[in-house]
Amino acid sequence: MRKNKRASEPEQAAGNGLLDRRLFLTAGAAAIGSAAVPDRAAVAEALPVEPWMKAPGAPFTPYGQPSKYASKVVRAVASAPGTTGTGTSRTPHHLLDGTITPNGLHFERHHAGIPDINPEAHRLLIHGLVKRPLVFTLDALMRYPMESRVAFIECAGNSALLYQKEPAQVGVQPIHGLLSCAEWTGVRLATLLEEAGVDPSAQWILAEGADASGMSRSVPLAKAMADALIAIYQNGEPVRPSNGYPMRLLLPGYEGNMNVKWLRRIKLTEGPTMTKDETSKYTILLNDGKSLQFCFAQEAKSVITRPSPGLTMGAPGLYEITGLAWSGYGRITKVEVSADGGTSWAAAALQDPALPMSVTRFRSPWRWDGGPAVLQSRATDDSGYVQPSRSKLIADRGARGAYHFNGITSWGVAQGGEVKLVYA
Amino acid sequence: MRKNKRASEPEQAAGNGLLDRRLFLTAGAAAIGSAAVPDRAAVAEALPVEPWMKAPGAPFTPYGQPSKYASKVVRAVASAPGTTGTGTSRTPHHLLDGTITPNGLHFERHHAGIPDINPEAHRLLIHGLVKRPLVFTLDALMRYPMESRVAFIECAGNSALLYQKEPAQVGVQPIHGLLSCAEWTGVRLATLLEEAGVDPSAQWILAEGADASGMSRSVPLAKAMADALIAIYQNGEPVRPSNGYPMRLLLPGYEGNMNVKWLRRIKLTEGPTMTKDETSKYTILLNDGKSLQFCFAQEAKSVITRPSPGLTMGAPGLYEITGLAWSGYGRITKVEVSADGGTSWAAAALQDPALPMSVTRFRSPWRWDGGPAVLQSRATDDSGYVQPSRSKLIADRGARGAYHFNGITSWGVAQGGEVKLVYA
Repeated sequence: MRKNKRASEPEQAAGNGLLDRRLFLTAGAAAIGSAAVPDRAAVAEALPVEPWMKAPGAPFTPYGQPSKYASKVVRAVASAPGTTGTGTSRTPHHLLDGTITPNGLHFERHHAGIPDINPEAHRLLIHGLVKRPLVFTLDALMRYPMESRVAFIECAGNSALLYQKEPAQVGVQPIHGLLSCAEWTGVRLATLLEEAGVDPSAQWILAEGADASGMSRSVPLAKAMADALIAIYQNGEPVRPSNGYPMRLLLPGYEGNMNVKWLRRIKLTEGPTMTKDETSKYTILLNDGKSLQFCFAQEAKSVITRPSPGLTMGAPGLYEITGLAWSGYGRITKVEVSADGGTSWAAAALQDPALPMSVTRFRSPWRWDGGPAVLQSRATDDSGYVQPSRSKLIADRGARGAYHFNGITSWGVAQGGEVKLVYA
Repeated sequence: MRKNKRASEPEQAAGNGLLDRRLFLTAGAAAIGSAAVPDRAAVAEALPVEPWMKAPGAPFTPYGQPSKYASKVVRAVASAPGTTGTGTSRTPHHLLDGTITPNGLHFERHHAGIPDINPEAHRLLIHGLVKRPLVFTLDALMRYPMESRVAFIECAGNSALLYQKEPAQVGVQPIHGLLSCAEWTGVRLATLLEEAGVDPSAQWILAEGADASGMSRSVPLAKAMADALIAIYQNGEPVRPSNGYPMRLLLPGYEGNMNVKWLRRIKLTEGPTMTKDETSKYTILLNDGKSLQFCFAQEAKSVITRPSPGLTMGAPGLYEITGLAWSGYGRITKVEVSADGGTSWAAAALQDPALPMSVTRFRSPWRWDGGPAVLQSRATDDSGYVQPSRSKLIADRGARGAYHFNGITSWGVAQGGEVKLVYA
């Protein structure tokens, strides 16, 4: 039994069924998926006493786990041939909501697996162009003033599938799953550098990890002093081994690999060190054969997580379009949503608080008429930068590179409700 | 080898070594636990190549877990005699930092264990004084507009140990571990109630859970309409079974048990239903034999999590005092810290963003001289309410009750650095 549609129709905000975002404040306009039941008589039928109400449930556990019914809410893992630890695990954003990525689902990109580091043996050395080289144990760091901030980390190679000539028939997780967001807590790198005493000739740092790949990146000293953290906690608990236990570098907004995991060494230098990880990798190959090097901050980007491929639509009617937007250059100030492939746009509601270098959840109500649609989202950050279309990004930069793809994603909704990646 | 103390002494903010909170912005004043090493020559010695740098590490996993070295970072579990699921599990705040509690460490208070609910069979019924009784499946709810908010949940019985006449020789986890904080996402209850059509005679709701205890509480309709959520996601992923999978009621700021887990029924009523859970339990027994009933919001409170019992101090010198503050009445506007048992107070730094009905992390620098100290924190919320001393709370209310203890916690630091609960 379906309820009748309300008499008063909500205000249109853009073509093909997009409704005004303020509907979220008034709500109640939806006649969707709920069945009216007569009171009393039908309560027992509508709400039977289930087996789990008849006997005591499971006991307590020291460390909790997800529901067995949420077994699909896991990362997708892919390793290079012949390895088990060189590759990626990707966050299933199509099955998540909110802004925090739980620690068990944070994406990973490892170059030589997850090292099993004994925290009592681990050291962090600060040396190079400093007055007093210093070495820190984890216990020593624990006495320093700390700071917490919510920050996304995104692999430079996230969304690289969208450089492909033909749209891959996959969804949010394979395309955009190398992005996650957590509350990180640790010691400001500036605090430690000031204690070491920075030599005026130092303009860069080298950050090195304690994994077998010796992951190494050069970072401008200005960034290290501005907001870099030596992160010790991730969403409240000690950083996971897969995210750098016992400590990682956090460079808010910068491409993932620069947020060096298992951080063991910071060396202050005059110029960049030109490591393997910033010469043979993590540069953007242009059409003329030259490469862009040292592209640090991730440009503003967004993606609709629901609806998206794999989540087939139900009956026509009211839906929420929701997704994530983020920028390595600051705060998301606007996300627009289109249901007609970019012909018309409606402003989405942004979930407070929209923090800088964090993900922002956006939401937009949509009345799907059951017909074809092309869903897109477009983010703007507080620098005024607007996320480009895929065709503009490729026209400007070519499609030979594998990094920093931030063009608009288009989801095609077919008659009948199947959702697929399309280029529009 | 220890560094010498800096020549310029930081500004005192209160007695017994409390320093100005703005030190966190200048930093670098600490000569603590770091050893100077000669550059080059001693690098290899200071930073040996460890075994985990010599071979590839562990492979990827679909759902990640904490480090084996963090095996103490778990909940403390206690069940009533003869049961495995009636009792509590408590969050180890002394080993955490930041504001988010990871889902595996969120506190629990169950009255009949954790039900194993099949989400496809689960129903949410809204009935009673409504125009159109409605029943929702999880799939139906998933189409509604959602909202995310970071909110603490605190058991009404949290901190009850502080009602005891003598200070228990335990720490943060047993005393204050029935408090956690997460980002919850779900559908506003107001949205569903508006769709059902609230009869003007309705002033309360009854919320009922699908566990074997049939947990039931009455809630004023005004609260249900103001900010109640049917929470489906917890820190991004589906709510854990131990926290109400597939859905729970979230009443921001209200005592824990009212945030009914495994929510199956909302009935609109004229008055409170007077369930077992609000008559025989969750009332505050006063000295005159009467009880306070329907104490909903948790009053402003704070606790220093580091240093705290179990975390023995190291060498004298600079430390960070940090902890959590929260109020069910709104936003935390001020936390003061004392190192001399309340004789003098210094304003702590509050971590941004300080959200309403969420926990706020506070931090204060402290130069411990190695002698005795009594550490306290005192929270103020945006209603102007100030957290009372333990003695004032007990003078006003008596100590016969077990609920809503929000007096100040005092940690005594002894010569030598042992930290104990004291009454001061």
